[in-house]
Amino acid sequence: MELEKEDALSEWYHKVLKEAKIVDSRYPIKGTLVYRKWGVFVIRSIQRELEKMLETAGHEPTFFPVMIPENILGKETKHIAGFEDEVFWITHAGKNKLDVKLALRPTSETPMYEMFSLWIRSYNDLPFKIHQSCAVYRYETKHTRPLIRGREFLWNEGHSAHTDYGDAEKNISEIKEIYKKLINELLCLPFIIDKRPEWDKFPGAEYTLAFDTIMPDGKVLQIATAHHLGENFSKVFDIKYEDETGKQKFVHQTSYGPSFGRLLAAAILIHGDEKGLVLPPKIAPVQVVIVPIVFKGKTDEIYDYANKIKEKLDALGIRNIIDSRELHAGEKYYHWEMKGVPVRFEAGPRDLKAGKVFVARRDTGEKFALDYDEINNKIFELFKNIEDNLRDTAQEKFEKKFFKAENFNEIDEFTGKGIIESGWCGEKSCADEIEKHSDMIAVEEGKDAACPVCGGFGYRIRVAKTY
Amino acid sequence: MELEKEDALSEWYHKVLKEAKIVDSRYPIKGTLVYRKWGVFVIRSIQRELEKMLETAGHEPTFFPVMIPENILGKETKHIAGFEDEVFWITHAGKNKLDVKLALRPTSETPMYEMFSLWIRSYNDLPFKIHQSCAVYRYETKHTRPLIRGREFLWNEGHSAHTDYGDAEKNISEIKEIYKKLINELLCLPFIIDKRPEWDKFPGAEYTLAFDTIMPDGKVLQIATAHHLGENFSKVFDIKYEDETGKQKFVHQTSYGPSFGRLLAAAILIHGDEKGLVLPPKIAPVQVVIVPIVFKGKTDEIYDYANKIKEKLDALGIRNIIDSRELHAGEKYYHWEMKGVPVRFEAGPRDLKAGKVFVARRDTGEKFALDYDEINNKIFELFKNIEDNLRDTAQEKFEKKFFKAENFNEIDEFTGKGIIESGWCGEKSCADEIEKHSDMIAVEEGKDAACPVCGGFGYRIRVAKTY
Repeated sequence: MELEKEDALSEWYHKVLKEAKIVDSRYPIKGTLVYRKWGVFVIRSIQRELEKMLETAGHEPTFFPVMIPENILGKETKHIAGFEDEVFWITHAGKNKLDVKLALRPTSETPMYEMFSLWIRSYNDLPFKIHQSCAVYRYETKHTRPLIRGREFLWNEGHSAHTDYGDAEKNISEIKEIYKKLINELLCLPFIIDKRPEWDKFPGAEYTLAFDTIMPDGKVLQIATAHHLGENFSKVFDIKYEDETGKQKFVHQTSYGPSFGRLLAAAILIHGDEKGLVLPPKIAPVQVVIVPIVFKGKTDEIYDYANKIKEKLDALGIRNIIDSRELHAGEKYYHWEMKGVPVRFEAGPRDLKAGKVFVARRDTGEKFALDYDEINNKIFELFKNIEDNLRDTAQEKFEKKFFKAENFNEIDEFTGKGIIESGWCGEKSCADEIEKHSDMIAVEEGKDAACPVCGGFGYRIRVAKTY
Repeated sequence: MELEKEDALSEWYHKVLKEAKIVDSRYPIKGTLVYRKWGVFVIRSIQRELEKMLETAGHEPTFFPVMIPENILGKETKHIAGFEDEVFWITHAGKNKLDVKLALRPTSETPMYEMFSLWIRSYNDLPFKIHQSCAVYRYETKHTRPLIRGREFLWNEGHSAHTDYGDAEKNISEIKEIYKKLINELLCLPFIIDKRPEWDKFPGAEYTLAFDTIMPDGKVLQIATAHHLGENFSKVFDIKYEDETGKQKFVHQTSYGPSFGRLLAAAILIHGDEKGLVLPPKIAPVQVVIVPIVFKGKTDEIYDYANKIKEKLDALGIRNIIDSRELHAGEKYYHWEMKGVPVRFEAGPRDLKAGKVFVARRDTGEKFALDYDEINNKIFELFKNIEDNLRDTAQEKFEKKFFKAENFNEIDEFTGKGIIESGWCGEKSCADEIEKHSDMIAVEEGKDAACPVCGGFGYRIRVAKTY
C-alpha cells in the first residue's frame, strides 16, 4: 500500500483503528468515538507521562465541571465570539427549563478563571499553575475524522497566572520543554513550533504558538498549542494580586494544551507501515509478546520456558504477554505486528536447548537470537534503539517535507507536500491572496523572503495545507 | 469537637474539604465541585487501584461519549422512566437546534449496549466485560452535599454480557471480591452488602445489591452498587450471540459501579478526627512528611540528613516530601496532621547524632525513635500497622451501630443511630408503613423476625436513615 497517497492512507488509517481496536467510530453521534482497549491504553500512557512532567514542574492537577453557565462563558467578548458557533447548550434538566443555559466546555479558561479570582490574593500565590486531563466539546461543522477532528475530544489543558508578562513567557518556555519531551522523546514524533498569524490566534490571546507536525500525505496537523493571554482574561474575571508594596495588580496568564487524540493519530500515521501500527515502546500497551513455538510432546517444556521469560520481563516492569492461543505462529505474528507491539520473542525447542530467545523487531523487521541470560541487560537498550530509529526515521522524512517558494507557481507546486517557507509584506490584503493558495501557519520576524503578491519584505511565513 | 453529632460533623466536614484542598464547592452551578490537588490525588489512587484489579480480571477499559441520543436513552422503558426526571438535555449547538436531543449520561447502560449489539456475535465473545472511569450527570433535586450527592459525580462503571443468568451471577461474585478489596483493604472501610427491595432497585434491573457503610452520624451511605440485568436490556438492544449449536440467544447482563466521591467522603468522615483528615497510607498523596528540626548553625547538616532520609524513601517508592518552609515546627505538624499524612519523620540535631529519626503516627498519635538504618525494614510494616488499626477501629465502631427492632418504638429509637434489623411479612402496604419510620435498605430470605405492622413472618429486613 502506498501510504503517502491520501486515499490509501485514509483507508489504511480506518482499517488500523478498527482492527487494532483503537476506536470505534460507529457511535450514533457524528464526530464522537468509543475508545476501545488499545486506544485507552495508549492514551493513558501519554496522559500519565504528561501529568507526571507537569506535576514535577509544579502544575497542580484539578478536575473542573464540564458545564459552564452562559454568563461566565460570555465574560470575555473575543473569547465567546470565537467559540459561540461551536458550543453545545444544555437548556433543560428533567422536565424543567433551566434559568441559565449551560455550555459543555469547549475549553476551560472561563470556568477556571472564575475560580482563580477566589484563589489568588497575593504575590505569594504566584506563579499559580493548574492542569486537567478531560474531554472538551466543539460542534464542528467541518468534515470530522477519528482522533483528528471530532465534537468530543480528549486533551490536557494547563492554565497559569503570573505577576507579569515576562514571568508568563517563562512558563511558555517551560511548557515548550515539556511538550518537546512528550512529542519528540516519548512519541518519537518530529514537530515545529509555529507562531500563528494574528487572525488565527486563540480567541482572547495575545499570541498563539502551535506545535505542528507533518503527516505522510503532506498535510500539517496541529497537535498542541500554547497561548499568552496577557491581562485579557484577568481584567474581565477580576484576578488581582497584592504585590510586595501592597498594590493591587492584574495577573498575566497563559493557557496550553495538547490533544491526546491528535498525538495518537500522528503516532499511528507517522510510524505505521503496511503491516499496521508501529508503537514506540514507552506507549505500547504490550511491549513484548512472547510466542511459544510448540511441537508435539514439547508443549509443557516450552510453556515453562515462556513463563520463565515472562517472569524476567515482569520483574523488570515490562508489559508483556504470552500468546497461548491455539493458532499458527504466523497468525500470531501477523496479529501482534498489526497491533504495533515493538518486540516479539519466539521461544521454541531449539531456543530452549540453546538457552536463547529469538527476537523480532517490529520497526525494522530485524531478527536475531538473544541469550536468555542477557535479556535483563539488553532489553532496555533494544527499546532505546527502537525509539531512536523511529525518531530518526520520522525526523528524516519530516525534514524532506520543507520547501521554499518565491511565487504562487512554487506555492501551488508544493502545497500539500509539506511546509512551504515564503515571505509576506505585512498587508492583510496580500495575506488574503496568499491564503487563497495555502494556509498561513506561521508568521515570524525576518525580511529574507518577498511577498508573493506585491514583492514587499516584512515577515517570514510558513504556509501549508492543514488538517 | 463531638463528631458523632450531625451538625458538628457537617461543619467539620466542610472545613476539612476546604483546608485540605480536597474540593471547592463555590463553583457557580449547584451540586458541582472543583476538585483540587489533594482530592485529585486521592481519587486518582482509588481509581488506579480499582482499574488495575478490574483489568487483571479481564475487564477491558473504554471511554464512551458523554452524550446519549434521546432515542437510545429511551429504548428500555423502565430505565428511562427511572431517569427521565434527572437528565440534563442538550437541545442546541452553536446557533442550531438539534434534530435529536442529547442527554448527558446519567449512567451508560444504553450507549454501551447500543455498541454491544455490534461487538458481540458468538459465544466466543463471552463473557464480555468493559469498564470506564468517568463523570455522570443527574439533576438532583434533593439537598446536595459535596462528594456525597451532586449533579456531576465521578465513578467507575462496569458492564458485562454473558451466555446465561448463572454466568452473569458469577461476575457479580467477582465484582463483590474486587469491591471488597477496594473498600475494605485499600480504604480500610467497613461495609455490608444489602439487597435492595424491589421498589428501590436500579431501573431495568432484576435485582440490585448495594455496598453500604455507616457514617459517624449513624446514617447509611451507599458507596457502590451491582445489578443483575437479566435479559432486560439485551432484548431491547438486540444483543444476541450464536451458541455452540448455532442457535441465536440473548445475552444476560450485569452492571456495577462505585462512586469515587462517596468512597472519598466515607474515608474522610469515618477515619477523620478532631485534627482533620486521617488517610490510609495507600491512598495518601504524601505518605511520609519529613520535618527538619533546625537550630542555628546546624541548618546544612540537618538538611543533608533530611535529604538522605528522602533518598531512602524515594528508592522505596514512598511518596514523601521535606517541609522546608520557614515556619515553626508546630505549624508544620498542625498542617500535615490536618492533611491526613500517615507518618511524620522529625529530624533534628539529636536524631542525627544518634542515627535515628523521630516518628509520629497520625492515626494513634504514637511517637517513637527509629534507627536510620532500620527505615527500609520498618516502614512498610508501619504502614501495615496503620492500615490494620484504621480498619479495625472503623470495623469496631461499625459493628456497634447494628440494632434489632421488633416494633415501631424500637425502630424509632434506633433510627439515625445505624442499621436496624427487623422483619417484614412481604405485603407492600406494610412496607409503606415501615418506610414512614425509616428507609428499608435490605430485604433477605428469612423468617426469624416479625413484621412490625402486622406481626407476619416472611423476610428479614434492614432499615436505616440514609444519605
